[in-house]
Amino acid sequence: MRIHIQNTASLSPTYTVDEAVWSAALARNGEDAAAYQVTFGKTPNDYAGAIADAELLLSHNRSIPSLFPAEAPRLKYVMCGNAGLDSLAPFDWLPRGVTLLTNSGTHADKAGEYALMALLMLANGIPAFVTAQGEARWSRQAGRLLRDGRLTVVGLGALGGATAHHGKAFGMHVTGVRTSASPHPACDRVVATADIDSVLPETDYLVLACPLTPATRNILDRRRLALLPPHAGLVNIGRGALVDEEALCDALDAGALAGAVLDVFVTEPLPPDARIWTTPNVVITPHMSADDPARYMANTLDVLFANMKALREGRPLPNRFDVARGY
Amino acid sequence: MRIHIQNTASLSPTYTVDEAVWSAALARNGEDAAAYQVTFGKTPNDYAGAIADAELLLSHNRSIPSLFPAEAPRLKYVMCGNAGLDSLAPFDWLPRGVTLLTNSGTHADKAGEYALMALLMLANGIPAFVTAQGEARWSRQAGRLLRDGRLTVVGLGALGGATAHHGKAFGMHVTGVRTSASPHPACDRVVATADIDSVLPETDYLVLACPLTPATRNILDRRRLALLPPHAGLVNIGRGALVDEEALCDALDAGALAGAVLDVFVTEPLPPDARIWTTPNVVITPHMSADDPARYMANTLDVLFANMKALREGRPLPNRFDVARGY
Repeated sequence: MRIHIQNTASLSPTYTVDEAVWSAALARNGEDAAAYQVTFGKTPNDYAGAIADAELLLSHNRSIPSLFPAEAPRLKYVMCGNAGLDSLAPFDWLPRGVTLLTNSGTHADKAGEYALMALLMLANGIPAFVTAQGEARWSRQAGRLLRDGRLTVVGLGALGGATAHHGKAFGMHVTGVRTSASPHPACDRVVATADIDSVLPETDYLVLACPLTPATRNILDRRRLALLPPHAGLVNIGRGALVDEEALCDALDAGALAGAVLDVFVTEPLPPDARIWTTPNVVITPHMSADDPARYMANTLDVLFANMKALREGRPLPNRFDVARGY
Repeated sequence: MRIHIQNTASLSPTYTVDEAVWSAALARNGEDAAAYQVTFGKTPNDYAGAIADAELLLSHNRSIPSLFPAEAPRLKYVMCGNAGLDSLAPFDWLPRGVTLLTNSGTHADKAGEYALMALLMLANGIPAFVTAQGEARWSRQAGRLLRDGRLTVVGLGALGGATAHHGKAFGMHVTGVRTSASPHPACDRVVATADIDSVLPETDYLVLACPLTPATRNILDRRRLALLPPHAGLVNIGRGALVDEEALCDALDAGALAGAVLDVFVTEPLPPDARIWTTPNVVITPHMSADDPARYMANTLDVLFANMKALREGRPLPNRFDVARGY
């Protein structure tokens, strides 16, 4: 397989694959070095010289728009070093017959720990304490254990699966929500997205961990926000546009929701005058929940080799992105 | 055993033991109801009528100063519904020959989850994000997994033990610090308090979970704070006076410490003009880390019955408070 890896100059060096990172990944995955002819590039010139005979291109969301259209007659696969490709829609830039792959799985450990942190922060009332801290106000309020808390996780891919797993390990009652209601090992029950309304009133902690697609855009709209009990808390590690941000601010302002831990927003970076900055009972993190720079590209290459193995064995590629469904 | 339980009127009803809470605890612990003659009180009159023949008094730190001296000729045990009794020192109010018991163990689950939350918050840079949030500033900074992080836990009682346990489960390298360097199942190594200086430079996360005693007061002084690497974070779930608060504020102001999650302070409630409120990279919670109202008195009674069992079996009482050492 002829592979070209086009690194993204504007990303930190930890998101770069070089010969050392590649060789370590080959060894770690028991892969035969001779089976791959790999080149590494960063500049447009590097790309132009390599894409003409590349069969697989690995790059990042951030670079893809500058890499297509391209004269790439042998190209069969484009792998993004990202799990959510919503920013690349519509996918009319993708050459016909080329399979798009994500690095889904790369983020599971890190996002899972972030989600567990966010659940513990909600159980301990941290969003309200952060608001009180801004006012130099000592406002004693007891927390609670996660045990027996009712956790609803929307999306049961790598992020949602890791979240459900942690919740289960801490004794929570875990409800998963996904396209089809098929069971999940870390969930006590799974309901179909179409039935989400029925579980919101019984939810203490709601975690959004699904991709942004036409079907999930604004899934937590004003009406559904109002179905949550007032003591409930929200975690969003998916995409900002899953939520009606104005309605969320209204709910937090009104005390109709106890708190929120948010990592993603409709507009990123959040502009200085965004209402959410000054909304009470919220903790804001700058879209960092799922990234572990120390392991990011290593994990991405592990995902790549898992797909190469599937290809050799004639199995469906686990990371194939379905343009029609959007994930 | 003749037991009097003097509830504290100023505490929330969840800290009250009544007949129902008592009976449930008897049943849960397989205890013989006939072995105990128990009374429940709240007012000074209730107390006066019961203490004259009580053998064991159960009450809270907050009430104890108003309950002694007392005419209590049969009294053998005073159990506090608290684990840290530093606020009751000096212990000259304790009638001669009376054994003091704590409810140590009651707080382990809740404090352990708080400590895990605080570790995850430090790994994700939440204290810095909270500061940025106050300034409506989007400041992207990657977090890290707990895995391979070097955790130092000072104090290996119920709180520190639970902290070490969680750290270990998340793949951290756990160093315990306690009076003697005897091993602990959740720690990779244990060093004696006298050797704490040697481990601070190798610490990514420092958790203070020890009692406040003459030996631990100011244990994290200015000199020791300077031994921590600048990327390190601090969690305090012990007592405020374990730390030199001014030196801590200086370190956080100077960026000599990455962040702190603090639940306890020298003066509580923190006065509105306390410097720590406006110190950067800190998250403040109002001394709530260890309390789980839903289970607090039930847990306390479970601890009481564990001690009653030890008494029947002629074993040392696990919750005996040693006035000389202060815990």
